[in-house]
Amino acid sequence: MNNKNLMGAVVAVMMLSSMPVFAGWEALPEVAPAPEDNPTTDAKVTLGKMLFMDPRFSSTGTVSCNSCHNVMEGGDDSRTFSMGVHGKTGGRNAPTVWNSAFHSVQFWDGRADLLEDQAKGPVTNPVEMGVTEIEQAMDKVRAIPGYAPYFDEAFGKDSMTVVNAAKAVAAFERTLITPDSPYDKYVKGDKKAMTAQQVSGMETFAATGCTSCHSGAAFNGPKMEFGQGFYTKFPTFADNGYNKKYDLSADKGREEATGKVADAHMFRVPTLRNITDTAPYFHNGSVNDLTEAVSVMAKTQLNKDLSDKEVKDIVAFLGALTGPYPEIVMPRLPATSGYSLVVD
Amino acid sequence: MNNKNLMGAVVAVMMLSSMPVFAGWEALPEVAPAPEDNPTTDAKVTLGKMLFMDPRFSSTGTVSCNSCHNVMEGGDDSRTFSMGVHGKTGGRNAPTVWNSAFHSVQFWDGRADLLEDQAKGPVTNPVEMGVTEIEQAMDKVRAIPGYAPYFDEAFGKDSMTVVNAAKAVAAFERTLITPDSPYDKYVKGDKKAMTAQQVSGMETFAATGCTSCHSGAAFNGPKMEFGQGFYTKFPTFADNGYNKKYDLSADKGREEATGKVADAHMFRVPTLRNITDTAPYFHNGSVNDLTEAVSVMAKTQLNKDLSDKEVKDIVAFLGALTGPYPEIVMPRLPATSGYSLVVD
Repeated sequence: MNNKNLMGAVVAVMMLSSMPVFAGWEALPEVAPAPEDNPTTDAKVTLGKMLFMDPRFSSTGTVSCNSCHNVMEGGDDSRTFSMGVHGKTGGRNAPTVWNSAFHSVQFWDGRADLLEDQAKGPVTNPVEMGVTEIEQAMDKVRAIPGYAPYFDEAFGKDSMTVVNAAKAVAAFERTLITPDSPYDKYVKGDKKAMTAQQVSGMETFAATGCTSCHSGAAFNGPKMEFGQGFYTKFPTFADNGYNKKYDLSADKGREEATGKVADAHMFRVPTLRNITDTAPYFHNGSVNDLTEAVSVMAKTQLNKDLSDKEVKDIVAFLGALTGPYPEIVMPRLPATSGYSLVVD
Repeated sequence: MNNKNLMGAVVAVMMLSSMPVFAGWEALPEVAPAPEDNPTTDAKVTLGKMLFMDPRFSSTGTVSCNSCHNVMEGGDDSRTFSMGVHGKTGGRNAPTVWNSAFHSVQFWDGRADLLEDQAKGPVTNPVEMGVTEIEQAMDKVRAIPGYAPYFDEAFGKDSMTVVNAAKAVAAFERTLITPDSPYDKYVKGDKKAMTAQQVSGMETFAATGCTSCHSGAAFNGPKMEFGQGFYTKFPTFADNGYNKKYDLSADKGREEATGKVADAHMFRVPTLRNITDTAPYFHNGSVNDLTEAVSVMAKTQLNKDLSDKEVKDIVAFLGALTGPYPEIVMPRLPATSGYSLVVD
């Protein structure tokens, strides 16, 4: 290397060094992690998308996974509590399906280790898809001739089982990721990807302590093995007006899943990705304003009163965690020729 | 033209003449007709698809046009009666949206002249989307900042009106057509497009007299101007077991729309296209078997008892009227950033 080239290299290294390096800030991986026994394949994703969109397995034929986790929206349904069969409503806000693949446990209370386990839950929930036994739903899948070739392709012959249906849905959900947000671009070095206010909000977010829980690529805590949940007590500081106003302590959280008093009011830390598109907020959907939600969190989790500017800057930063969403082609749901499976 | 060319032309004409020519059999046009004041444009179709898929305008935020007219299925919902907000059900079977553009009037009773008029109906139906006044639904559209540019593009500035929203939905629906079914290919000269049984069924269909109502490219009667409906009394022959078994006379049909006794039990003749995918059948969804539906129609409309072979052949022929369906990319529904419009 001659002197001129050496100088060039030194300048290049200096330029790299002067690029923003944020300790702890991580971009979202381009591919979601999958458990060893269910590697993501195109065939599973194709089948899983069909099952995810198909309402015919619900007791009324009206509720699909997509009904409450609408991928045309923020991966949820804009409601406080989702509305399942016969207009029934549940007791917790539907979490977004977008980037759910980056959670190491599923549901607000972490009662499922994997998306494969989660996928089965709503089917037999009486206020969601309302089927009595999950095999009844699977019987409907098996009764649709057009599904068989897709199971064959994804899992081999004679593979139309609940386990494989859930694996397929999980594989599809692992494609529902948004790794190219302004924040991701910024972290990767594109300093123009976020606005000055968003950068300021990013600093405020960390300085306030939000990153003590909302860390990592999905802003849902440190990377953990599947089945190992990252939980926080909510509210941690209960002695304030917000707790009463939004009835935050009524839900016992993980205690309702484990029966252990030690788990009272413990909730899985949710991802903040695409949070601008997932109002209303919290496990009980009680706050329909992201600005208010930020103030509530600062007070109930960190016992801090943020200034208006701090809140607005954080909200601006959170906006940098949204989208873009990948294009999804509607699946064609295999028909039952000349009769309907839906009898309710 | 020299002798050789003349011979070639004669042979060509002879070949054309020897191709199957079915008097009265028509292929579906490649483009659906549109009213003069709403020519179909890409910008309207793009906007209309979004509005068609968006559940947020319903009172519960759970019911979109696509909920009951699911384009991933047969353009309906596989149910006897659709389920709208709060699990409420209506009193008539949801007609398919596929090829609805080829109906000269809309709804079972023809109470809307155009898709533009039809689109507004379910929004304020208390058992469908459940909004009190249609302007309330439109207020929600107007409250979503991301919709404005799409209205601008489709209709010009300051165009966010109910009339334009309905026009956009209608424009999208005019793209929901299936002009490339085996039947269409067959009629256009591809003799291998239908099976021998389907061809036999086609002949039986005509010989039985089904074509007296189910004629034309969409099998819903002769081509008529928008607003001019083609109606038939159902059942025409009421003195048979089917009438009682399936409660066919309970619904007064068009009389309920016009108040005229002369319209009692008159129904718009529905399209038969994609009928294999639209069970259960009839205005009251009372028959969940296409084979039975064919027998019922022959008896109640033509007072004929068909043999098993005749019925099976006709059902096979009806299968040739199905699909293929065009690919639809899911729209991304514009978000409301940091809050939800859905409050119910």
